[in-house]
Formats: sequence, C-alpha cells, structure tokens
Amino acid sequence: MKVLVVGANGQIGQKIVKQIQDSEEHSVVAMVRKNEQKEQLEKEGIEAVLANLEDSVDNLVKALSGADAVIFTAGSGGSTGADKTLLIDLDGAIKMMEASEQAGVDRFLIISALGADKRENWSEEIKSYYVAKYYADKALEKSNLNYTIIRPGALVNEPGTGSVWAGTEFEYGKIPREDVAKVAVTSLTAEQTYRKAFNLISGDASINEAIKRL
Amino acid sequence: MKVLVVGANGQIGQKIVKQIQDSEEHSVVAMVRKNEQKEQLEKEGIEAVLANLEDSVDNLVKALSGADAVIFTAGSGGSTGADKTLLIDLDGAIKMMEASEQAGVDRFLIISALGADKRENWSEEIKSYYVAKYYADKALEKSNLNYTIIRPGALVNEPGTGSVWAGTEFEYGKIPREDVAKVAVTSLTAEQTYRKAFNLISGDASINEAIKRL
Repeated sequence: MKVLVVGANGQIGQKIVKQIQDSEEHSVVAMVRKNEQKEQLEKEGIEAVLANLEDSVDNLVKALSGADAVIFTAGSGGSTGADKTLLIDLDGAIKMMEASEQAGVDRFLIISALGADKRENWSEEIKSYYVAKYYADKALEKSNLNYTIIRPGALVNEPGTGSVWAGTEFEYGKIPREDVAKVAVTSLTAEQTYRKAFNLISGDASINEAIKRL
Repeated sequence: MKVLVVGANGQIGQKIVKQIQDSEEHSVVAMVRKNEQKEQLEKEGIEAVLANLEDSVDNLVKALSGADAVIFTAGSGGSTGADKTLLIDLDGAIKMMEASEQAGVDRFLIISALGADKRENWSEEIKSYYVAKYYADKALEKSNLNYTIIRPGALVNEPGTGSVWAGTEFEYGKIPREDVAKVAVTSLTAEQTYRKAFNLISGDASINEAIKRL
C-alpha cells in the first residue's frame, strides 16, 4: 500500500513515516505544509507532498494522488488555540475524509484520543479539543470509508515496548508514541481493525496479538 | 406552542422572548444560565428555566419539560474564544438537538449565520466560528427533528423594518436583529420552513410573504 501520512511532521507522524519507510510491505508519502519540510524529507529519500489542511477539498484530492490509504495524525494538539483545533482537528480531518471519498482512497486511519468518544470522559482542561476529536471521529464512522479510529491514552516519548492493550473498554493509561505509530502501521492491512474504533494503552500483549483480539 | 428559547439572554434571544411573550399564539420559556437572570425574567412575568449548554444532555432534557419547540439562538459569537465556540455553538447546539430528540420535542429552529453552509463563503477573520455553525447545522439536517435553519446576514441593532428577503441563493446583506427574531417566531408554525434552511437579509417583502415564497 502507498500510504499518505497527514501530519507527517508531528511527533507521531514522524515515527509513522519512518516505520513505513523501513517496512517492506508499504511505501509512504509524507504530507507536509512547508517547502523546507518537503525538501528535508526528500533529502532523506522520503516522498513528500505539499498540502495544507486549510486548503480546499480539491487541493487535498490532488495530494492523495496515487495513495491507497491515509493515516491522519495531524492535530493542533491540546496546547494550541481552539481556533486551530476547529480548523485542523475538526474541519481539516473531515475535509481529508471528503477528499479520500472523492479520490477513491478507501482506507482511512485516524489517531484520535482516549476518551474522545464519550462526553463524560472529556477532561476539563482540554475539553474543546475533545469536542473536535469527537465530531471528526463521528464523521468518519458515518462515512463510506474503511476506517480505523485509534484512541491512544496519554502519549509519552519513552521508547516503544511493543506491548500494548487494545479494546473498547475505557481504562486510563499511557503509551509511547512509538507504539502508537506501530499499531497504526500494523493496522493498515489488519482486517480486525476495519470499520472499527479502539482504545490503546500500554499492556502485555504484542501488537499483533492485541489487534487479533479486537 | 410552548417555546423554549435557548440563549434567551442574548441580543436576538431577548427579542424572541419578548415577541413570543407578546403573541397570543405561543408561550415562552427562557433558558438562562444564571439565577439572577431567571429572577429578573420572572419579575417581568416571563417563565424561565436554569440550564447550561455545558451541562449533560440529561439536564437539558429536563429543561425541555413541557416544551413543544426550541428556538436555539445561543452562541459565544465571533468575539469570544474559539474554546467556547466549540463547547457552545457546536457541542452545546448538538446536545440540545439530542435532548430534543430524547424529550420528543420535534420542532427545532436554529439561528445560524449567512454563508455558514459553504466553506468558500467563510470569512477569514471568524473562520473557526463558521466551522462550528457548519457542523451544528449539518447535525440538525441529519437529525430526525423538524428543523428550520435561519442564516441571517450581518446583524445590526437598528429597529426592524419587517421587510426581508429569504431564500437559498447567497447574497451579502444586513438585517436588524429584531427582524431575525420576528422571522424565527413566524417560522415556528410556517410549514414552508419545515425541514428547511434559508438565508435571510433585509429586503422588500413582508415577513409572511417572504416565508410563503420559500
């Protein structure tokens, strides 16, 4: 599969790009906003495309040219203004879904956030961020795309352990960004993750095993 | 009809409350956030209920007790932080829709904004506000409620003229808040507005005539 990584310059995005680049199964196109990011990636031998989630859907369709799948991990995060949260995490994500439908790119994975699917689990401090994730995820579930929604717990920068827990029950927990990336890449062709949403924290199963149990 | 006005303390909301109170056809319940607002309204002989759009859907269901219709005109506006835009204009509106469905209150009118329905019409300065209105309106259109979406142009505080233009074509224009309120109240039982969205600016038809032409 040729995978367009949206948010390729983000912390999880960089890890996903690297993992796909190192894999023998898939190839990667990194979607970035700035020309210097594109040039840097190309220097490292990574295919890149310039596009901005604030662009029109038509422009995003062009960025999808040749792709078989999307991993959407763009996000303004909990720390930027809610203004960008609305434009990127909500409308940007949904525009990318519309573009994928138009381009006939059926496989769409999104990195959401643990607890985003239930209002009672939204933490007070970044509640508006959860609102955006909630409605973006809902739009994906209602789309015709073959989606996977991954809802990782608190993200940490420790090295991945390769041991995770994945499921629909809600349990607080942490998970290294490297493991989130690996679960996303492994999910690409894992039928157990098709048209499914799941929570993800560190656990004691291998990634393959955890996905098999979904 | 007993009409719950959500955002009863806002500029348009106050006018809607007053107009319904003065009408012989309908009665009003003003939904407000603060007890002093409730007490003030009750002093003026207006029924009021305390509820907050940041409350749970269950609490909003309680606020709907006895109502036959909702006019939703709450909004953090273009000037407050996008944080509140996400929580009030988007999630608050959709929670109110969910509450209405649960309470069996079928008639639901919302005051949106001219241009909100098409991304190319979103003005740069308050783009995130349009994102919230866009997805709230979309959710209403997809709901089972008998909705009316009113999209007024630039709101002004001049006295209403009673002369408006309403339709689905897009044209920039202004409109006094008093006329917006009057169109909303007139629409309550106007079948031409059922399950419909329309733009609204000042024009040269009477409100009844403009609605008849929809």
